Parts: sequence; structure tokens; C-alpha cells
Amino acid sequence: MHILSADQFTKKQLEELFALTSSIQQKFAQDKNEILQWHKGRVLITLFYEPSTRTRLSFASAAAHMGMSVISTENAREFSSAAKGETIEDTVRVLEQYAPDAVVIRHHETGEVARAAAATNVPIINAGDGKGEHPTQSLLDTYTIWQHFGKLTNLRIILGGDLLHGRTARSLAKLLACFEGNHIVFNTIPELQMADDIKQYLDDRGLTYEEESDMKKAFAQADVVYWTRLQKERLPEGVHIDQTYAIDTKAMGYMPDTAILMHPLPRVDEIATEVDNDPRAKYFTQAGNGMFVRMALLDTILTRLKQ
Amino acid sequence: MHILSADQFTKKQLEELFALTSSIQQKFAQDKNEILQWHKGRVLITLFYEPSTRTRLSFASAAAHMGMSVISTENAREFSSAAKGETIEDTVRVLEQYAPDAVVIRHHETGEVARAAAATNVPIINAGDGKGEHPTQSLLDTYTIWQHFGKLTNLRIILGGDLLHGRTARSLAKLLACFEGNHIVFNTIPELQMADDIKQYLDDRGLTYEEESDMKKAFAQADVVYWTRLQKERLPEGVHIDQTYAIDTKAMGYMPDTAILMHPLPRVDEIATEVDNDPRAKYFTQAGNGMFVRMALLDTILTRLKQ
Amino acid sequence: MHILSADQFTKKQLEELFALTSSIQQKFAQDKNEILQWHKGRVLITLFYEPSTRTRLSFASAAAHMGMSVISTENAREFSSAAKGETIEDTVRVLEQYAPDAVVIRHHETGEVARAAAATNVPIINAGDGKGEHPTQSLLDTYTIWQHFGKLTNLRIILGGDLLHGRTARSLAKLLACFEGNHIVFNTIPELQMADDIKQYLDDRGLTYEEESDMKKAFAQADVVYWTRLQKERLPEGVHIDQTYAIDTKAMGYMPDTAILMHPLPRVDEIATEVDNDPRAKYFTQAGNGMFVRMALLDTILTRLKQ
Repeated sequence: MHILSADQFTKKQLEELFALTSSIQQKFAQDKNEILQWHKGRVLITLFYEPSTRTRLSFASAAAHMGMSVISTENAREFSSAAKGETIEDTVRVLEQYAPDAVVIRHHETGEVARAAAATNVPIINAGDGKGEHPTQSLLDTYTIWQHFGKLTNLRIILGGDLLHGRTARSLAKLLACFEGNHIVFNTIPELQMADDIKQYLDDRGLTYEEESDMKKAFAQADVVYWTRLQKERLPEGVHIDQTYAIDTKAMGYMPDTAILMHPLPRVDEIATEVDNDPRAKYFTQAGNGMFVRMALLDTILTRLKQ
Repeated sequence: MHILSADQFTKKQLEELFALTSSIQQKFAQDKNEILQWHKGRVLITLFYEPSTRTRLSFASAAAHMGMSVISTENAREFSSAAKGETIEDTVRVLEQYAPDAVVIRHHETGEVARAAAATNVPIINAGDGKGEHPTQSLLDTYTIWQHFGKLTNLRIILGGDLLHGRTARSLAKLLACFEGNHIVFNTIPELQMADDIKQYLDDRGLTYEEESDMKKAFAQADVVYWTRLQKERLPEGVHIDQTYAIDTKAMGYMPDTAILMHPLPRVDEIATEVDNDPRAKYFTQAGNGMFVRMALLDTILTRLKQ
Repeated sequence: MHILSADQFTKKQLEELFALTSSIQQKFAQDKNEILQWHKGRVLITLFYEPSTRTRLSFASAAAHMGMSVISTENAREFSSAAKGETIEDTVRVLEQYAPDAVVIRHHETGEVARAAAATNVPIINAGDGKGEHPTQSLLDTYTIWQHFGKLTNLRIILGGDLLHGRTARSLAKLLACFEGNHIVFNTIPELQMADDIKQYLDDRGLTYEEESDMKKAFAQADVVYWTRLQKERLPEGVHIDQTYAIDTKAMGYMPDTAILMHPLPRVDEIATEVDNDPRAKYFTQAGNGMFVRMALLDTILTRLKQ
């Protein structure tokens, strides 16, 4: 069983995964030591062709809390046999010989992780492949909404920030289209609007959406505001994000009390730190959910292997 | 409980810490396996914004010998979200979500570790922040003296090498000023003499000191000779350290039999290898003490967490 | 006990090591969890002065499967105290203080690992020192032959690829000379032929060999074809290896059914991927054997330490 794309999960599988994540999260709060026995001595290799400290540490923590050993390389692109011209298929076939229970791969090129997975029986988890997929990010985003609302249907989700380049907003829109009754509001400047391929995807699945550049109007009846990082170098000349699409206390006032504010992190100026203590701000919880989703995925994979 | 500065410890706390360190050291020599049960499965993250292999491996070994899992990043400055503009407060708030039991941080800028600590409830240990603090180094230096003499009072300590730039000699002088009756001799060339802020600090606390450029005179009644690394590029033109302030067998002859020679390592030419077998040479023991002091600190932190 | 060179083993010791490796391999296939108890909590440091991801991950996996903790540095040359001028003797003396059970060292300069070993009582394993030795590679190559044929005598071994620069082919030739009745065929272009020092070594020990540039003739009665990587920049102008010394399905047809094809990996174009499914292709098995040989070496070292 490989984890290559969030698309690979059926609605039923997603719900099972989220229920497992939630039960792990509760058990962990009660008794870490029980979970520590689950996969004692099993081995996780994290093979990162480009650095992504946050994602790597999240996977490593997830594994360590379940008693696994973690063996990692931070920058395989520069260091490994890849530099000598080895294909990723050969690399994972060699790693397979070292008998790991799973291999987490981060790669700078789209499709490379899927190529690796096709070459081996060891479970491969995609931790991001270039502009391609980053399924555990999508899953932790969706889980955070599911955890809070107890459902993934009939929600009004505002997507903001850099919708054109941001992988996370694009993936979330696609995942939301699998569930009924959701409505998406794209809230950004025209230059960074969501691309047509995603709009087409939503159209095909009957999910409604609108573009609303005014933050106050967009936030008015939100269930979820999902904000993303804006890179200064991508803003049109003369546009200062902190004067327009930065969320501060005032902007929080536009949101209902029942809404939640999410962000894949790292954030820079697009969410002011004064917002952090607002109970609706869920971005750190969201990051923590990432570790628990990864624990649930590893547990699913390793439990299957045992059977 | 964060470990940010050696100054944070009272005399009583220092003595308790050293007694614990000493008892761990003895227990470890007798039965490693008992200590291995102490913090089984607990997770330590080492977050290094600049490389310091020696310090990182010392912390990691300390944790591993107590059964902890260690998750680390060697060069967070270049690799992590920091490169995308994330603050260290956000970084540790994310790491906190991964449920580590402690986080060791090394940073290239003074004050950053304290900022991190202020933002989180996870115990933070400062493993050096620029020109700021490096409390575990100060503690291992002091512990080494305490271990050998059974006290930290009424000692004659010679500080040599680069007293102007060296963080370790400055910190040691400050810690010695907390105890009664010590006398410090600054033994170096005028260009690398101890700075006035430290002299003022000693004056304020009534600790006596002198400058003595002659090695033979300085060493005559020493209890401790604490030597530090001299970087060639900081020496005035025409000064060759090996002809003046390098310690060789001859220089050892100036010291009493009861004295000990310390050095924070790495050493280059300022202590000749012929000195290594002299029983008074304690620099490798001192490095080993560093691991045991770190075990004691981690044990103190984790035992508190349990309570 | 240090592992510095394949030469250090007597024939009897090699056979004992291989028997142990084989028994570990079988036990691992039956019950990983038993092996996990063997060296629980013991600590391995991998100190790599230059990156070699494959070798490092192989050692780390070997250790993890036996319950050891692994503490590692990927690029000590750039990061560690070495950059400040510390000798490798001092470095290992400091590491010794951290009480590891073994230290694996990879170094870019010949002889440095042996210097480290001479300075410490902690078992040092050479994971490659420049153009010098890489004993675990030699041992896994030899083990693979022993495992398949049940012997290391009276075999016809074809060595191909870059025999002039390749460390592995040179080492294998030397090891084969310790056993009776082997015959080596050097199958490459004149510009990359085996150097005279190895030929002299074989002459001195009475091992027969020949040069045969024709692949079909060379492979005709082979027991082992040991192929090595060809670096394009070392080929004479106008020579395209894929037209001459690349092994494809056709070339496999020149080999007896009972022969095996080995390669130290990574491979680039010198073995076509279409060959991978041929049962005679043993290069991935060979890489896996590397982990088991390393487990056997670590087990030998740690069992001795216990006694």
C-alpha cells in the first residue's frame, strides 16, 4: 500500500482514516506509553531529495511516538547516488533490501515518488513531489475541518492568499469537491486567482464557487477561512499584501464566531501574530493534526503488513 | 522549565545538578541498562540553525543512553521554514505540536533561543546562541572543577588563550564569581585580554583577579588552568602562539602536581599532544562530563514533566 | 576490535563471519523481533566526512534492526570541529567520551580512519577512506559469492567496467587471491585495465588471470560476472560504453545459466534495466547482503564487548 495522492482515498476510506486519527489523538493524550508499543522496532526511512524540515520532523515524530526507529537523509539530491546518475527506481530497490517498514519520500520533481512506488513492494509515502501531490498535507487540512465540524459537507470555505501558485489551496478545493453541498469563495487579488483547471474540476463535480475580492463580504458567512502564504516576489508591483489581504484582529471581526481560520504554515505577514490567541485560529492545531494523520497512515500501513 | 543561561541556577541548584550528574555517571559505569529505562520512548528534537557536531552528538548520546528517541536537523538555518521568513516563535509552536519532551536549540543569533522559549511550554535547552549563552558548556566546565576538587570555592584559576573573544572563558569567570574565595589569573597577550565588562562583573561581586602575562608565574600555584583556542587570524601580526602561549611538557612543569588542565576543545596548537597523557590533562574527561551534565539536565526536565 | 581492512580477516574468520551473516539473514526472515532484542539501547555513531547515503543508511538499518540507537552526522568535513583544525584523533577521543558502542567512519582521505582507530578503544569501522579501504563493501561482495556457490574456491570470475579506478574490483581481486583455484578474467577496454600492482599481487599468490576484451569469450564459462560503474568522463574520446561494455539481454546470453551477475551499485548505463528480472542478476540481493554483513560485524563487535 502506497500513499501517493489524496485522490486515492474513497470517501469511506477518508472517514475511516479520520476516525482512526481522532482515536490515536485521544489515546496519545491519555497514555503515550501504550502507543509506544504499537510498532516497536519497526524502521522508517525518510528520503528527502530537497529539505522540508517541518514535514520530515512531523513524520519522524509520528514514527518515534509509535516506537519506530527513524533513519533519514536530509538532502538526498545533493548527497546520494542520485548525483551519480542512479534512477529513483534503483534507489528504492536498494532501500527495500534494508528492510524498512515504510519509506517517506520528498522529491523536487513531479512524478518521481510515483515512479519509486511502482518499483518496490515497500510502502512509499509521498511527502511532496515538486508541483505534484502532497497528500499528507491535504489530509491534515481536511481532517482539521472534519475534526472541528464533524463533517465535510455543506460548508462555506473561503480560500485566500496565493491561489494561483499555492499547492495546498488547489488540493483542498479538489478534496472538498468529493463531498456534497460545499461552496468555495476565492478571495484574492485577480493576479493570484485560482486557475481554470481547478474551476473546471469543481464544475465537473457540481461544486459551487465564486470569486469575491472583498474580504469583509467573503468572510461574512464563512465556516472555514483557509489562508495561504503570499510570496512578495509574486505580488504585482505596488501591491502591499499587509494593506489588503493580511488577516489581523479587524479582519477576524468579519468572521462568524463559529468559523475557523486555517493556514498550512509557515506564515509570514499574511496573518498577524495578534490573531494567534483568537480561539478560531487553528493553524497550530492544524500542524499538530499533521502528525496524528501521519501516525494514522503509518499505523494503517504497518498493521496491514502484519496481517 | 527552560535551560537558557547558566545564570539561572542558584548555588543550591548547581550543587543539586552536580550531585545528580555525578550519581548518573557512577550508575552509568555500573549498569547502562538501568538508565536506558529512565526515559524510554520520550522524544528529543535537536534544532540546530548552525552546525555544531560535537554539541549535537553529545546531547543525542545523552538522550539515547536514557532510552529517548532523537530527531534532529543539522542546519535549520538553510533548510527550514526560517528561509521562508518564519519566526522562531512560530517554528517552536509547530514543533510543540509534535509532542517532543524537550527541544535543544542552537542558533547563530543572540537571544533567539530565549524568544523561542518564551513562545512555548515545551522545555527548551539553549545549546548556544551566537555570542550569547551556552549554558551546558559553562555547566560542564564548572562540574569538571567541582568533580575534581569537591568544591567551587577558594580556588586559583588561570584563564588563558583568547580571553577577548572566547565565550567559554568569559562564562566561566562569571560562574566562579558566584562562589567565595576564588582568584582568577588572566594569562594572555595584551591584545586578547579579558574585556572590561567581565572585570567589572567580578569587581561587583568581590572576586579578585590579576593579569599575569608570564606563563611560569601564572601557573605557579594554580588549581585550574583553563586554556582556550587561539585563532591565528586573531593574533597580532608577528605573534606565533606556539612560541608563547602553547602548553607543552615544559609548560606543564610550571604547574603544581595537584592542578588540572582544562580546554573546551577543539584544540589546535595551543596544547601539544604530548601533554595528553599527563594525568593533570582533563580536557577529554571534561568533554565526557558534558554528556553527563546534559543527561542530568534532561533527567531533571523529564522527571519534572512526569510529576 | 576495529574493522579497518578486509585483509585483516583470516580465511577462518571470513568463514565464521559469513556463517554468522547467513544465520542472521535466516533469523531475520523468520522473526525480526528476536534480533531486535540483541543490542537494545546500544549506541552507534556514524561519522561521515563525506556523504555516502547508501552506506550510511545500510549501517543505520543494520543497527536499528538489532535495537541500537543511531546518531549520525552526514557531512562532518564541512560541519564539525575538523573545519577548525581538529585532528581526527581528537575527534574520536571526544566521541569515545559519549560512550558509543561503535563508531562508523567514512573519510575522504586514505589512512584517516586507521589513525582514528589507533587513538581510541571504541571499535571503529571503516566505511571507506578515500582511495584506501572499504572493507564492508569487499566483505559483502565476497559473501554474495560464498552465499551463492557455498565456496570461494575454484571459481571463474569476470571483472568488468572501470578496473583501473574502481576500488571494488581491485579489492575483490585481492580477496579472491586468498582462496585456491580461482581464475580471474579482466574484461574491459585497454584504457581501463587492471593496474600492475594488483596483477603483481595475484602473481605473488599464484592466482591465475587473463585479459580478454571480447565480452562473449570472457563470459563463456563464467561463474561470476562482476561489473562496475563506468564514468563517462573517464572514457577515451569516441568510446561509447553502451555500444561495447554495457550488459543487456543479449550479453546475458553469453553467460552460463549457473553464473551470477554482480555490481556494487549505483549503476548507470553499464547494465540495462531489462536485465533486472533475470534470476542471475544479483546486484540488489548483493546490496541487501551488505546490510546483513554489517549486522554480523556489529554483532561480533558488541558480543565481544559484553564478554
